[in-house]
Amino acid sequence: MAGSTYGTIFRISTWGESHGKAIGVVIDGCPAGLELDETDIQPFLNRRKPGQSVFSTPRSEDDAVEILSGVFEGKTTGTPISMIVYNKSQQSRDYSEIASYYRPGHADYTFDAKYGFRDYRGGGRSSGRETTARVAAGAVAIKILNQLGITFTTYTQSIGNIAIDYNAFDEQEIFNNKLYMPDANAASKAADYVIKMTEEHNSVGGCVEGIIKGVPAGLGDTVFEKLDANLAKALMSIGAVKCVEIGDGINVSKMTGSENNDGFSFTEETGIQKNSNHAGGILGGMSDGSDIKIRASFKATPSILKTQQTVNKNNENIEVSIKGRHDPIVVPRAVVVVEAMAAITILDALLLNMTSTIDGIKKFYQ
Amino acid sequence: MAGSTYGTIFRISTWGESHGKAIGVVIDGCPAGLELDETDIQPFLNRRKPGQSVFSTPRSEDDAVEILSGVFEGKTTGTPISMIVYNKSQQSRDYSEIASYYRPGHADYTFDAKYGFRDYRGGGRSSGRETTARVAAGAVAIKILNQLGITFTTYTQSIGNIAIDYNAFDEQEIFNNKLYMPDANAASKAADYVIKMTEEHNSVGGCVEGIIKGVPAGLGDTVFEKLDANLAKALMSIGAVKCVEIGDGINVSKMTGSENNDGFSFTEETGIQKNSNHAGGILGGMSDGSDIKIRASFKATPSILKTQQTVNKNNENIEVSIKGRHDPIVVPRAVVVVEAMAAITILDALLLNMTSTIDGIKKFYQ
Amino acid sequence: MAGSTYGTIFRISTWGESHGKAIGVVIDGCPAGLELDETDIQPFLNRRKPGQSVFSTPRSEDDAVEILSGVFEGKTTGTPISMIVYNKSQQSRDYSEIASYYRPGHADYTFDAKYGFRDYRGGGRSSGRETTARVAAGAVAIKILNQLGITFTTYTQSIGNIAIDYNAFDEQEIFNNKLYMPDANAASKAADYVIKMTEEHNSVGGCVEGIIKGVPAGLGDTVFEKLDANLAKALMSIGAVKCVEIGDGINVSKMTGSENNDGFSFTEETGIQKNSNHAGGILGGMSDGSDIKIRASFKATPSILKTQQTVNKNNENIEVSIKGRHDPIVVPRAVVVVEAMAAITILDALLLNMTSTIDGIKKFYQ
Amino acid sequence: MAGSTYGTIFRISTWGESHGKAIGVVIDGCPAGLELDETDIQPFLNRRKPGQSVFSTPRSEDDAVEILSGVFEGKTTGTPISMIVYNKSQQSRDYSEIASYYRPGHADYTFDAKYGFRDYRGGGRSSGRETTARVAAGAVAIKILNQLGITFTTYTQSIGNIAIDYNAFDEQEIFNNKLYMPDANAASKAADYVIKMTEEHNSVGGCVEGIIKGVPAGLGDTVFEKLDANLAKALMSIGAVKCVEIGDGINVSKMTGSENNDGFSFTEETGIQKNSNHAGGILGGMSDGSDIKIRASFKATPSILKTQQTVNKNNENIEVSIKGRHDPIVVPRAVVVVEAMAAITILDALLLNMTSTIDGIKKFYQ
Repeated sequence: MAGSTYGTIFRISTWGESHGKAIGVVIDGCPAGLELDETDIQPFLNRRKPGQSVFSTPRSEDDAVEILSGVFEGKTTGTPISMIVYNKSQQSRDYSEIASYYRPGHADYTFDAKYGFRDYRGGGRSSGRETTARVAAGAVAIKILNQLGITFTTYTQSIGNIAIDYNAFDEQEIFNNKLYMPDANAASKAADYVIKMTEEHNSVGGCVEGIIKGVPAGLGDTVFEKLDANLAKALMSIGAVKCVEIGDGINVSKMTGSENNDGFSFTEETGIQKNSNHAGGILGGMSDGSDIKIRASFKATPSILKTQQTVNKNNENIEVSIKGRHDPIVVPRAVVVVEAMAAITILDALLLNMTSTIDGIKKFYQ
Repeated sequence: MAGSTYGTIFRISTWGESHGKAIGVVIDGCPAGLELDETDIQPFLNRRKPGQSVFSTPRSEDDAVEILSGVFEGKTTGTPISMIVYNKSQQSRDYSEIASYYRPGHADYTFDAKYGFRDYRGGGRSSGRETTARVAAGAVAIKILNQLGITFTTYTQSIGNIAIDYNAFDEQEIFNNKLYMPDANAASKAADYVIKMTEEHNSVGGCVEGIIKGVPAGLGDTVFEKLDANLAKALMSIGAVKCVEIGDGINVSKMTGSENNDGFSFTEETGIQKNSNHAGGILGGMSDGSDIKIRASFKATPSILKTQQTVNKNNENIEVSIKGRHDPIVVPRAVVVVEAMAAITILDALLLNMTSTIDGIKKFYQ
Repeated sequence: MAGSTYGTIFRISTWGESHGKAIGVVIDGCPAGLELDETDIQPFLNRRKPGQSVFSTPRSEDDAVEILSGVFEGKTTGTPISMIVYNKSQQSRDYSEIASYYRPGHADYTFDAKYGFRDYRGGGRSSGRETTARVAAGAVAIKILNQLGITFTTYTQSIGNIAIDYNAFDEQEIFNNKLYMPDANAASKAADYVIKMTEEHNSVGGCVEGIIKGVPAGLGDTVFEKLDANLAKALMSIGAVKCVEIGDGINVSKMTGSENNDGFSFTEETGIQKNSNHAGGILGGMSDGSDIKIRASFKATPSILKTQQTVNKNNENIEVSIKGRHDPIVVPRAVVVVEAMAAITILDALLLNMTSTIDGIKKFYQ
Repeated sequence: MAGSTYGTIFRISTWGESHGKAIGVVIDGCPAGLELDETDIQPFLNRRKPGQSVFSTPRSEDDAVEILSGVFEGKTTGTPISMIVYNKSQQSRDYSEIASYYRPGHADYTFDAKYGFRDYRGGGRSSGRETTARVAAGAVAIKILNQLGITFTTYTQSIGNIAIDYNAFDEQEIFNNKLYMPDANAASKAADYVIKMTEEHNSVGGCVEGIIKGVPAGLGDTVFEKLDANLAKALMSIGAVKCVEIGDGINVSKMTGSENNDGFSFTEETGIQKNSNHAGGILGGMSDGSDIKIRASFKATPSILKTQQTVNKNNENIEVSIKGRHDPIVVPRAVVVVEAMAAITILDALLLNMTSTIDGIKKFYQ
């Protein structure tokens, strides 16, 4: 089925494999009149780009994006924006070994089960490289949202057992360390941990957190198209994510009503506000005007040098050690992917919200 | 926007408010030839029905379902199945107080922010009563899936700090206690805890877990329509859910690759199988043939007698105590809702999967 | 598949069979704040109702509509509006004969081919009675559009070879004759013709035309979601329609560019306007501000007393004469169905258009 | 809104402007295992390519297609197929004049009305060049359908007043003349007519007809997703189409029931068949196993040298004569576009039909 399209009004369709000619995305439904060129997109791709540090694959890619359509005289025209990133480093290499067995933790087995065969070169469509296209589209969504006063702060919340200390939270620090953690001390410990695990031929997981400020109240729809439901889908659709939380997340199951409820208060300066934000900015599936808080837990990179049990094409039980250019941890590069997916989701909700009331419609068309 | 429709092929559209005339659902895309009548639906609604025990609202409702269309001579015809449940106990009562302020933890504030006003009778469309329609539709999905060998075991995994002991797991016990826990001892402790909290005019949260057996490998699509992504949306769309997990869920962030990866092995009897199931039955967004494991964390019922701070219509800061017929915990009644949403999601993926290969299509049409 | 849902923002899902318990529709995505009750809907249903004259089936139905949800204190709440019309006259009668063979021109054969069996009572889901639900939803769309200054004039343009004379066009006349023709003379001739054909145990076809005034320029999207493309789908989805035209329609194939192009001119009073309207109000798939002109050609009612050749369940070639309560012509009752489908389509385009430009979005949210 | 995506299972998203860098399409939902390379696509693009004869624009384009993703070792993988055609001849030229006024019959005015500005280079997204992408996607759909025994015969049925003589119908002739008419005599007369009109600085319209053989009975869904409804949308979405007909089309309005109904008969060799095909292969919105007959009427190319009235940017009433490289008639090049859109529509219906019955589902998964 059509699994590579996301969004209702701001709708993206992505394509491309890890070792194909290119990766790309078509954005349909981007509003007209937005000033846009490649320099708006590239910084986001650079945050996701491989080869940034010892914590990511040494695969060398520029990830230079080119806009092929939908922009005229520097502005979006309302027609589809096609963007392409050519794969530079996809050639060569012998994949015959990897093609011969199922890598544990990868989609090799399920791809074969579904389609009867698979593109085994670097994971094909299931490669993390697919997220390049999401980030390119997300950069456009973020540019629009920024113009409406909505901003994103996204970062690594934890790696293994090492979590940030919220008392030491420093937004400026996020881009200072290669792990994108807002706490220099935690980042330093986490770096040591990742290096240690890499040396042990292992890999590690972690958690990405995002805070979205400035979202007007009322975005999202009751029942199935709740804003949190769509954020959950958006984040869970990122490879390696196994848990999505909103606000206090998993902890709510242990809290009482009086602990979890956010009371309201009114002052002349602020208007009506919540006194706390356990809800993470969403009530009844609609944004409530306070910060939206999202969290996604990522499993460790499945490709490890450490010996693992698996089965080959001849149905023989074998031991394998996965070689190649792999990230020891996907989390730091995934930070911008989480941000991109959240932005696309929120923009779509914001656009859909414009038709909520007869008064809003009348005002628009009068 | 159209927020009350869910699914691509097996598509449900729900309607109705807590205190309106009725609640209902239209299933479009149900395959023809399924034997179906109200007795297939009613047992599922009874699991969700209010007034079952001291742990649920004393509101009295039969929740008797009536099929209005789509079934002829005892079988589904392939046309829309319309089902209705009349609200019996929606009358009476003075809502003027509740209408005058924003209840903490409820959708009152966001409804007003979005639409300018709200149906304040019992939460209107944001009431848990809305899930009646989901359960009715889910019962149909489950009947179909059962015929394909797919079964659901869904239960309360924890309430507050009291979790089940997996060593004491007893599937038969689930329907033996009013909290739907597969561990009599945990159920007993949890019951005490809920009663204590109720006496303290408070409410409690908890966690629902589901295990789905018999799902063939290959369901779900790569990228945005991953099976886990849609399960995350399905579960997060249930009111009060703040966290969704697949397989090892939130714990993967602390695990290494060698701990989290599931190796494969082959025997003549079993074919290829995973040696463990940290993945929860989904790899690369597609089912892998092992049990699918899902978990949803529910916040405590927001309606509590305990005093809370809020704001009234005159922007005055006030203290309120929410009276009325409220569940002290939503989890036990939500078990069947989780099951229903998972079933609808998996059935839709199963139907969509039929068009995955040219060979499958040729075989179907030859 | 889900074939009974229509629309993206203003989305309707219909259900019900000719001889089932009821017919209904759920409107999801209706903007909040619209004043609405049954008296807004009923006049539209009355235009479609059977038993109005000798030109329609004598089946007796009140077609009284009841709103079950989505309206609170007289206004739409933004949540799904469920409407129901009970079938009064669906009982009795022996369908065993009709069940035993394929009626020419009906969906009997294709239903069996697709589903393996069919609801043979009065055509089941393929009955014209299904359009009751479309009209109920269309009445809501028309009420909204009227408030935005958009109006509909829909009528019978021709019956058999008898077409209206545009020089004698009289809008007031439409509701004066039972055939809904805006030309009393043509209506009189057409009535004679229908009666004559009925006496010959035959039935007749005809054409419905609609003129939609006040549609702002710019509705509809380029490429696949052109306004005319969606109108074509909307009209062709009405049973018995075999041709859809926009503006000059089929005649454009015989016209030259200089004949067909509509020049533009400007005056201070009118602004920019087209000098003619061969395009029927749509250019490049978007409304151009002039009247939208649509036309749908309906085949004759397939149920006729006249002898026809067909095949029965035993694969025997037989002759049949279709008895029962049938319209000799569907056109007059279909007028309001065309209007309803056009209205739903235009409203959806109008809502989708609100997100077209970044300036419009900024203005809405500022 | 997202107007450049079409289809539910076999879903295409097109992008690109007449004078942008390239035109492209992403096919999502193409079944895996189809042998595919550029040589499957190119012949279809060549039928649409400009510069083929005096009847088409002299613009020089190779229209060479490149597949960028979704194919591995010669077979489709089930992941998105991205195809690109670079624009070779889009440079140069001064568009300042065309940018300064609204061309009659073009989308210039409506684009400005909707978006506030437009890409005026050769019509931008509203150029017929957009259909390149549709044809590339259609070629894939046709390859699949051919393997299932479904074939397409599409041709020019009329140009101006010159229609083919069905008694002289010669399928082989279609590719023998530059107008794609299955009647050499009509083609010769039509050629003279087009040349004459071109000399008079005018342009001409015409009609494209398609016959689709081998479609199994039962494709399409009742109510809104009728096969004919989707074909109507598909064809009306092609620029310049103003009328879509199925089977006897517009003539049904003048026919009686006994003339229009197709009786059934049975023989051992053929099974059940219709005795005639006024319905054009579709009954009740579902294919009936006989040939599907579609027809689309195209208006004359709006760009003509002949003087026309219009308005310029300063709201001055002016006279214009449209220069540039224009087709005097779009019909011959549109033949393959009609074929492509019909094929995509029928393939999508064929895929959706696989989930129609519980028996079909059980058989598939057993």
